[in-house]
Amino acid sequence: MAAWGERLAGVRGVLLDISGVLYDGGEDGGSPIPGSVEAVARLKRSRLKVRFCTNESQKSRGNLVGLLRHLGFDISEGEVTAPAPAASLILKERGLRPHLLVHDGVRSEFDQNDTSNPNCVVIADAGEAFSYQNMNKAFQVLMELENPVLISLGKGRYYKETSGLMLDVGAYTKALEYACGVEAEVVGKPSPEYFRSALKEMAVEAHEAVMIGDDIVGDVGGAQSCGMRALQVRTGKFRPSDERHPEVKADGYVDNLAQAVDLLLQHADK
Amino acid sequence: MAAWGERLAGVRGVLLDISGVLYDGGEDGGSPIPGSVEAVARLKRSRLKVRFCTNESQKSRGNLVGLLRHLGFDISEGEVTAPAPAASLILKERGLRPHLLVHDGVRSEFDQNDTSNPNCVVIADAGEAFSYQNMNKAFQVLMELENPVLISLGKGRYYKETSGLMLDVGAYTKALEYACGVEAEVVGKPSPEYFRSALKEMAVEAHEAVMIGDDIVGDVGGAQSCGMRALQVRTGKFRPSDERHPEVKADGYVDNLAQAVDLLLQHADK
Repeated sequence: MAAWGERLAGVRGVLLDISGVLYDGGEDGGSPIPGSVEAVARLKRSRLKVRFCTNESQKSRGNLVGLLRHLGFDISEGEVTAPAPAASLILKERGLRPHLLVHDGVRSEFDQNDTSNPNCVVIADAGEAFSYQNMNKAFQVLMELENPVLISLGKGRYYKETSGLMLDVGAYTKALEYACGVEAEVVGKPSPEYFRSALKEMAVEAHEAVMIGDDIVGDVGGAQSCGMRALQVRTGKFRPSDERHPEVKADGYVDNLAQAVDLLLQHADK
Repeated sequence: MAAWGERLAGVRGVLLDISGVLYDGGEDGGSPIPGSVEAVARLKRSRLKVRFCTNESQKSRGNLVGLLRHLGFDISEGEVTAPAPAASLILKERGLRPHLLVHDGVRSEFDQNDTSNPNCVVIADAGEAFSYQNMNKAFQVLMELENPVLISLGKGRYYKETSGLMLDVGAYTKALEYACGVEAEVVGKPSPEYFRSALKEMAVEAHEAVMIGDDIVGDVGGAQSCGMRALQVRTGKFRPSDERHPEVKADGYVDNLAQAVDLLLQHADK
């Protein structure tokens, strides 16, 4: 593999995944990954542009940022690309009235959307709200539509909490896709539109940007499909088998965000 | 299309789906589809062999037969092919210890299986028991196995109860398949092994048998793949669009079981 200097040459902007890179979530709110608070601070003091690009769909952007600030991170709402506010905009643009199969913590992101007489379903990481009753209700709404529209906030398979691996929204989206014979539109990683909207906010071209994430498919594969470079951290949901993934090869594997930032500050923008 | 006489020539055995053909289920136990009680009685008085082939996986075979007898049907346990007892046998043959993600009503079918220290997951139509917690537990069991085995009792998309359409086991199986990167083994329709076991019990060859069901894919397509003929009834989960299905074409469409039996008694075995 090429030397780090070559692999990181010309990087001007950095996209950071949040869960599994900055912190590990949990019922107690979670805890920072060692070294990540300082790493973010160092990045932000550098000449590199930084933006946070998450698929978090259980919490509103405000609640997520509040939690991260409480854990010590220097982060503000305006620096975060999150799927729920992105979906809310898309719904308004297309005149869609959602039936929401979402966690209560993210419902406020859809306050500006008309939810009467729904003509689509929005599914997010609803956690415990993925009851049979709630899934069946969303299924019935879709089956009554002539042209069923299903919007999925990300398509993650699972994520890691301190208590263990947890099923993510992608699994439940597959269930509805199969039952209704539809294909969901994804708002969130690895959707190319989603990465591009984050790049646009940062005013950086894809070939000048690097994504840092713990998900070999959603973060690394997705970013590379957009023409970005991508590093995988060995924290969060990382598994050793990811480094032998049959389809996706990261531009580099690092132990954690702190090591990624060391390398970036040493080699990028040269 | 050929005349009925030609389409039904040489039929010696009839496989009947239960839900949506004999009766429509519901929280009150359900109600017989008009004409079906008589139709079953007439079939059993004829020279045709009859067997019931169901994907019912919420109730034990005993409970299902009890309900049907209460509704007026002439049916006994020995005449029913059902996925839970079939799966229980397979588990024993292969030394598999299941983690059961099933409805309490069917749990007794697995009384003879060792469920300690599970090395596979069996998923059935669990209904309300498809909680996030139960799904996540099954997911975690699979993720901890070196060679994860997922056995699904059928792969139906949905079924119809008196209160409306209900998500079936297939949707939840897709969720676990996607999350774990595995493919489930199906015990139930449309698995060819399952149809063959029903034919064997009836001592009838596939080309001498006709399946009567309400599911264009699971019943009609599955039976045809085994070399049987198949009729779709316009009851249960039937939808008018089924008659224009892109991949499956029934050997005939009939209004209900009563009409199918009229035609069979008139034309079969000649």
